[in-house]
Amino acid sequence: MVDLTQIMDDEVFMAFASYATIILSKMMLMSATTAFYRMTRKVFANPEDCVTFGKGENAKKYLRTDDRVERVRRAHLNDLENIVPFLGIGLLYSLSGPDLSTAILHFRLFVGARIYHTISYLTPLPQPNRGLSFFIGYGVTLSMAYRLLKNKLYL
Amino acid sequence: MVDLTQIMDDEVFMAFASYATIILSKMMLMSATTAFYRMTRKVFANPEDCVTFGKGENAKKYLRTDDRVERVRRAHLNDLENIVPFLGIGLLYSLSGPDLSTAILHFRLFVGARIYHTISYLTPLPQPNRGLSFFIGYGVTLSMAYRLLKNKLYL
Amino acid sequence: MVDLTQIMDDEVFMAFASYATIILSKMMLMSATTAFYRMTRKVFANPEDCVTFGKGENAKKYLRTDDRVERVRRAHLNDLENIVPFLGIGLLYSLSGPDLSTAILHFRLFVGARIYHTISYLTPLPQPNRGLSFFIGYGVTLSMAYRLLKNKLYL
Repeated sequence: MVDLTQIMDDEVFMAFASYATIILSKMMLMSATTAFYRMTRKVFANPEDCVTFGKGENAKKYLRTDDRVERVRRAHLNDLENIVPFLGIGLLYSLSGPDLSTAILHFRLFVGARIYHTISYLTPLPQPNRGLSFFIGYGVTLSMAYRLLKNKLYL
Repeated sequence: MVDLTQIMDDEVFMAFASYATIILSKMMLMSATTAFYRMTRKVFANPEDCVTFGKGENAKKYLRTDDRVERVRRAHLNDLENIVPFLGIGLLYSLSGPDLSTAILHFRLFVGARIYHTISYLTPLPQPNRGLSFFIGYGVTLSMAYRLLKNKLYL
Repeated sequence: MVDLTQIMDDEVFMAFASYATIILSKMMLMSATTAFYRMTRKVFANPEDCVTFGKGENAKKYLRTDDRVERVRRAHLNDLENIVPFLGIGLLYSLSGPDLSTAILHFRLFVGARIYHTISYLTPLPQPNRGLSFFIGYGVTLSMAYRLLKNKLYL
């Protein structure tokens, strides 16, 4: 039987596991942020969520959209669209035997860029802060995909 | 050469594989549910989808939104936002050598909470049914992330 | 210590890595396509994105939705909803020791169907082009889930 705990002795894999867990936890914060704004601004998407604020027609006025909430939701969806490729490609890249320092540089750049992307989106900072942080994360993932396909293509 | 089939002899990993497959299959049901409501209620997002119901201006009236369809879509997006972190963090957690019974408790709680979340969202059940099931799934994922980072942090 | 680079000697796993990387890269193209249409059609979701096109009230007219942009966004979300289950179930399926030619057939069908889905969505081609390509990808993922649970169920 393979002792799976040994997989975690591989330094590249351990680094990937750490950075992936950090960026996924950050993404989960977006759910809490949405919930926070929905509660404090009384902006809901479902009738059953606002019954504590009033009955019948009185409750319906809380079924609306709000700029602040929509902004958090757009940031959350953008996270999903970019973190899913990072997870898939990053996992396979980590298993393809890359150089440790190159791999860590990729992971750090991605995680840093995505955190800065969230800050730029929620503050909001003027462009090109958000655009630039998006493209850094995007480029990091494509760079890992390129190295993976160059070394290990099997179709 | 590593015999990869041996990885599946690891009990924690087999349990993760089973629960992950079950919850992903449940998430895929949401696509079918959306399609079902779009067909039976004749509510479409694309002009090419409603040509069988009429031509020209007559078809355009089916390009609309519907409470029931939007509810399923929100439940689906909430699934994505929560199952993606579970998959990433759960996979790495499974490889980090956790105690079998602790790991299975995490997986069962998460899968149970997410199935109950879908039931609460689609029925809909009054709050706090949906809120509670959301937070159980959320807490399980954070608990796995915490154990992973505590034991294996490598930055 | 396990030499992780040996995992990539497994042919099924290498094939999965290649096809997963290709389909994730295709999904990332959807972000670039959205950005392209937003720029060329001057359709933005955030006030900070359109300041270069005018000041104050003049800029606000670019905060709108556009059929073309919404179409790309729907295709992107549909990709996410279908590629996430493929990644999770496909990874576990690849590790469960399937027959090489069966596995490659699954991966090729999925990747082909999803690429055709995107072409059908963005052109747009008349139905049932998009519907059919959706159901092929859906069926492939369910087929892998079925084989995984049949052989390796551990609850």
